[in-house]
Amino acid sequence: MEKVIAINSGSSSLKFKLFEMPEEKVLASGLMERIGLGDSIITIKYDGQKYENVQDLNDHEQAVNLLLQLLEELNIIQDFSELTGVGHRVVAGGEYFTKPTLVDDQALAEIDRISDMAPLHNPANSLGIKVFKRLLPQAASVVVVDTAFHQTMPKENYIYSVPYEWYKKYGVRRYGAHGTSHEYVAGEAAKMLGKPLADLKLVTCHLGAGASITAIKDGKSFDTSMGFTPLAGVTMATRSGDVDTSLLSYVMNHSDIKDINEMVDILNHQSGLTGISGVSADMRDIIAAAEEGNERAQLAFDIFIKNVVRYIGQYTAEMGGIDGIVFTAGIGENSQPVRSAIMKRLAYMGITEDEKENATFGKNTFVSTENSKVKVLRIMTDEELVIARSTYKLAHENK
Amino acid sequence: MEKVIAINSGSSSLKFKLFEMPEEKVLASGLMERIGLGDSIITIKYDGQKYENVQDLNDHEQAVNLLLQLLEELNIIQDFSELTGVGHRVVAGGEYFTKPTLVDDQALAEIDRISDMAPLHNPANSLGIKVFKRLLPQAASVVVVDTAFHQTMPKENYIYSVPYEWYKKYGVRRYGAHGTSHEYVAGEAAKMLGKPLADLKLVTCHLGAGASITAIKDGKSFDTSMGFTPLAGVTMATRSGDVDTSLLSYVMNHSDIKDINEMVDILNHQSGLTGISGVSADMRDIIAAAEEGNERAQLAFDIFIKNVVRYIGQYTAEMGGIDGIVFTAGIGENSQPVRSAIMKRLAYMGITEDEKENATFGKNTFVSTENSKVKVLRIMTDEELVIARSTYKLAHENK
Repeated sequence: MEKVIAINSGSSSLKFKLFEMPEEKVLASGLMERIGLGDSIITIKYDGQKYENVQDLNDHEQAVNLLLQLLEELNIIQDFSELTGVGHRVVAGGEYFTKPTLVDDQALAEIDRISDMAPLHNPANSLGIKVFKRLLPQAASVVVVDTAFHQTMPKENYIYSVPYEWYKKYGVRRYGAHGTSHEYVAGEAAKMLGKPLADLKLVTCHLGAGASITAIKDGKSFDTSMGFTPLAGVTMATRSGDVDTSLLSYVMNHSDIKDINEMVDILNHQSGLTGISGVSADMRDIIAAAEEGNERAQLAFDIFIKNVVRYIGQYTAEMGGIDGIVFTAGIGENSQPVRSAIMKRLAYMGITEDEKENATFGKNTFVSTENSKVKVLRIMTDEELVIARSTYKLAHENK
Repeated sequence: MEKVIAINSGSSSLKFKLFEMPEEKVLASGLMERIGLGDSIITIKYDGQKYENVQDLNDHEQAVNLLLQLLEELNIIQDFSELTGVGHRVVAGGEYFTKPTLVDDQALAEIDRISDMAPLHNPANSLGIKVFKRLLPQAASVVVVDTAFHQTMPKENYIYSVPYEWYKKYGVRRYGAHGTSHEYVAGEAAKMLGKPLADLKLVTCHLGAGASITAIKDGKSFDTSMGFTPLAGVTMATRSGDVDTSLLSYVMNHSDIKDINEMVDILNHQSGLTGISGVSADMRDIIAAAEEGNERAQLAFDIFIKNVVRYIGQYTAEMGGIDGIVFTAGIGENSQPVRSAIMKRLAYMGITEDEKENATFGKNTFVSTENSKVKVLRIMTDEELVIARSTYKLAHENK
């Protein structure tokens, strides 16, 4: 029984999902938190059971060692030769990664080289890759990069209107993010619509704590709302999305904030829904507070909706039409009020909500009616499955 | 014969246009440049003639004094009691100015108070107002503020997704610009379309060295592309328009640029068409260079077009439909290739270009065909005329 593991390493965490392949059966999933911070929390779900423990994990090496040991002790894996691939999510891939890639020295060097584009993520990703390679040298090591899917964007959609030297010298351009998710849900949407993806114009809305919206044309990413980093685009849980850059200098000239990195940190962590509402970064709290009459929570909701609507409109114009809209990720999959508000504002396109279907949970479905001119779909994203598939494929191609 | 003068004061310049009212006949227009810089240049056009001279003007007071003297000497005005109003363009009006306003102490104080939102313009505007008030105390003094028209935007279209305190404390929000122009061309478009403006959904594209795009719904500004300052929105001659704010910190961490104000200055003055192309800030030069095979000039053109297209798409979605698109200002009025490229990308909306009309110059006209589903108009903007009309109206209401 061949197995593949999908890994998402954070600076102090490690998430995994273990699949039996090619059956795509989930054997176990879990999370190790507070690595290097003392009192690390280990959670593993497997076969209807749950393992939980708290112990100190000093670093990722120790965490991975413990994970492999637990997989054996819990009888999830008997023989590590069955584990033929380890797939790693990498956040920022610059222009080097255009597709899932077998890790070699050059790939690792590239992840490290561009790590200051994603300073919280890439160093952790890189560390995770190295540890797994050392402990499981027989398994194929694969990276699935969040930006890779967007490398098909035409140049006029990724070059900023800034001095061109900044692109040549510093790699400043739009890279986007959530590529694995956008690619996966677009593929699922094409199946549900019964047409080849290449014949469809889709807008995929990955709406979670981080949110990005992608125009998919000719089966490829044509434009996307996240930019040089995941700060740009729509309003997010704590991220500002697009703002007039001159407000940075204005606020810095008038407040105690004097360091640009502090400023960008505020735009990343104290803005978005939480910054507008003063209530919460969580859309469920925002909606609850708005229903109780909190005006700033209502404003945060309205701004979020307006932002999704404007990107759908923008991408419709850029692609010259639209066949379908896909909602996915935490908010996209679970928030009936968000999907409903967006569909109502897009009624002019001939979109009509299927209220009954839109009130359901936990399955891929059409949330627009059968005669809706533009189809609207809710699709459960599964980035780990895409990572596992890519890893399995590359492991076999390179045997 | 009653006269009104429209004034646009810059930091080292003063533009004017003198009207006979209510006939709206232009009696004279002119420009004083290099005020305070030595070798000031004075140009006045009147009655088919042209007056030109070079002499030192130390400050705006001296400039206005000379202007009034010349108007008399050139027999343009015989009796200054005929000059019943002076209308001033003001760039930034914050939330105080919602319509053309008679200048009183409070209005002047407000223009000064918010002058660091438009540090190049408001102090000059304020200076011009004071000098004219002193020299022509009998004339009504009126301000026509660039941001006023946009004060009708709903809150979800003007609040940024940043800490809400920045709005309360520093007035950080979307204000927009070019309001006088957007309002004027929208009104002219409604006349040409034969419908009340309140019944139309229009996108007005003011495309000049500075460029802004406005969604006009229910006869009011509903959303606009310029933001807290005129830096935001579409690619401009030298301005970046929208960019991911985190590129500011990234470039500042990796280059010699260490001051946020220097950074924003580069985004204002070395970006946009000139930054992308390395060729020119002028669209005519960009098009000529692109035709000769210059790839970065072609890229600058493509990015400009994409930006206008994306805002038209965005505003169509935000308004829930679109009846007409208006092109105005330098590029909008004069660049057949720009209008043509935009209309071609919007063909999916049912827009068809009237190639013959689109190749004409210098008149208000439909540049889309009669059966085009969304009408596209070229309208010559006339901000001075709007200023003169508002000034005349207020001068008479307050007699």
